[in-house]
Amino acid sequence: MSEKIAVLGGGSWGATLAGLLAEQGHAVALWEFIPAVAAALAATRQLKTVPELRLPASVRVTNDLREALAGCRWIVSATPSAHVRSTLKSAFATGAVDPESKVISVSKGLEDKTFKRMSEIIAEEFHKTPEQVIVLSGPSHAEEVCRRQPTAVVAAGTDAKTVQAVQTLFSNDYFRVYAQSDQIGVELAGTLKNVLAIGSGITDGLGFGDNTRAALLTRGLNEITRLGIRCGARQDTFFGLAGMGDLIVTCLSQHSRNRRLGEKIGQGKTPKEALGEMTMVAEGMVNAPAAQALAKKQNVSCPLIAEIYAILYENRDPKTSLRTLMHRLPQEEWPA
Amino acid sequence: MSEKIAVLGGGSWGATLAGLLAEQGHAVALWEFIPAVAAALAATRQLKTVPELRLPASVRVTNDLREALAGCRWIVSATPSAHVRSTLKSAFATGAVDPESKVISVSKGLEDKTFKRMSEIIAEEFHKTPEQVIVLSGPSHAEEVCRRQPTAVVAAGTDAKTVQAVQTLFSNDYFRVYAQSDQIGVELAGTLKNVLAIGSGITDGLGFGDNTRAALLTRGLNEITRLGIRCGARQDTFFGLAGMGDLIVTCLSQHSRNRRLGEKIGQGKTPKEALGEMTMVAEGMVNAPAAQALAKKQNVSCPLIAEIYAILYENRDPKTSLRTLMHRLPQEEWPA
Repeated sequence: MSEKIAVLGGGSWGATLAGLLAEQGHAVALWEFIPAVAAALAATRQLKTVPELRLPASVRVTNDLREALAGCRWIVSATPSAHVRSTLKSAFATGAVDPESKVISVSKGLEDKTFKRMSEIIAEEFHKTPEQVIVLSGPSHAEEVCRRQPTAVVAAGTDAKTVQAVQTLFSNDYFRVYAQSDQIGVELAGTLKNVLAIGSGITDGLGFGDNTRAALLTRGLNEITRLGIRCGARQDTFFGLAGMGDLIVTCLSQHSRNRRLGEKIGQGKTPKEALGEMTMVAEGMVNAPAAQALAKKQNVSCPLIAEIYAILYENRDPKTSLRTLMHRLPQEEWPA
Repeated sequence: MSEKIAVLGGGSWGATLAGLLAEQGHAVALWEFIPAVAAALAATRQLKTVPELRLPASVRVTNDLREALAGCRWIVSATPSAHVRSTLKSAFATGAVDPESKVISVSKGLEDKTFKRMSEIIAEEFHKTPEQVIVLSGPSHAEEVCRRQPTAVVAAGTDAKTVQAVQTLFSNDYFRVYAQSDQIGVELAGTLKNVLAIGSGITDGLGFGDNTRAALLTRGLNEITRLGIRCGARQDTFFGLAGMGDLIVTCLSQHSRNRRLGEKIGQGKTPKEALGEMTMVAEGMVNAPAAQALAKKQNVSCPLIAEIYAILYENRDPKTSLRTLMHRLPQEEWPA
């Protein structure tokens, strides 16, 4: 069945998903905040950040929120996480958000200071029940989805029927959607893994290899899992596509900005110097203070998060961090 | 405290661990099956397979089992898994195995036909109680341990005191040992992951990227976790160093023979052709029938293991496998 869908946010991932949905036969409007970017995308059907993208002609690109939202049963929230609240506020103010519509969140991050998850912000700003908001997450570089390479993600929500509808909406030959009921876990995993990606880059920059990276990823996932459980998440979510899967993709990719930032720091640059050399934001840099604060608030021991935070914000030398980590007392892998 | 330790098996990992233990101040004898290899190792203190290795002068290399075992409180079993039973049979026949000695197993694999774990074979052949056998496993390329790169592994056993003693025996500045009580899980994870490594190589060979690899590793770990639980293992073990950690190292390493075998098959070679081009055994090829049989016996749905098995042993075209996997009915990530 063809649905009317609005995608809010014309970045790499928003545009890629808009194209995928249009190819499934849905009527898709893609809203982009910056008028010039919207106009260029409408004209060229391409983005510099994802050269593989060919936006189908049927996708209506617009800079007008009301026009994008009118009559839509599904809304995809795909702006950078820092802009989700302001975008949705403007969107709701148009009066064009159908009260019956369902919202699919694909942005990763926690709100500054409040630590709220994107699904919570969506429910607040759109006056939605938690059941009306679904989170789509998992290991999915936009470039590779555009190249139709086999990709698997999860759709997480508290209403099984709505989750199923999202599976149907997106699933095709190369894009497989698994159902998940643990929305908290999916959102926390997607956010916290960015901090570990910086750590993984740091070990690369220090010249270490596979053993060190595997230890960092495994012990790091152990930490954020224990932290997530304390926040109400389920353990197995962290070992699924939104956790381990996304962590692997982020930490191993040459494209990952988080990993690149860490690599420069590992090579001896200060975080400020490393950031100065980069053109785009590394989300893990923004998420690290939230992760560290959350661990303290929940009283969960997260030695790797603590060291990565100290390297990023307290001028700790990565080599000192490493010594600290390796010299801790012998321990159980999963303390009771 | 300095201990007397025999390491049985002068391959890459056995020699590396012998060197590490000797540097901790222990009196180490390293037994190697092939007289000429033992003599060369004794003379050169080097191995072709691990150019980084410099075997300390204090390690006594020998081809004589009785000499290696005499007076040892600890025995490290480090031969290829297919040779563990025969080696231990010969070792026990010398009469030099101290009944009080503890055995550390570092070989991965299940015995052909019986599906017995290495720790079970050790207990049988050495007349040991289960508490006297400890398994050491985790993401640890020998080359990188020789280069003193930070590495983390688990020691798994049912007696906490003995596990602690193993932690003390091995732990140093760059080698960190975590305690584990789930020996079944550690051994199954270490074996089953080799099959997934072949699968990961196949997707590489087909020209797919990070999304596909992350999906395969995550869904593959999901399968072997469910299979392991049915065999008496704990879920979190598969999410730890012996599971996820070792899986990452094996599937991403350019050195992994399992991954290389898969890559050649993905590029269009038959398994036979691919094997013919390789000089060393790929354990996953041997483990795949055991994994497939175990899944059937335990009645656990393992679609990835089944397809990898079919590709390796039933001439299934990898592209057909991929279509089968992507076209399965929509599903929950962690079915109840």
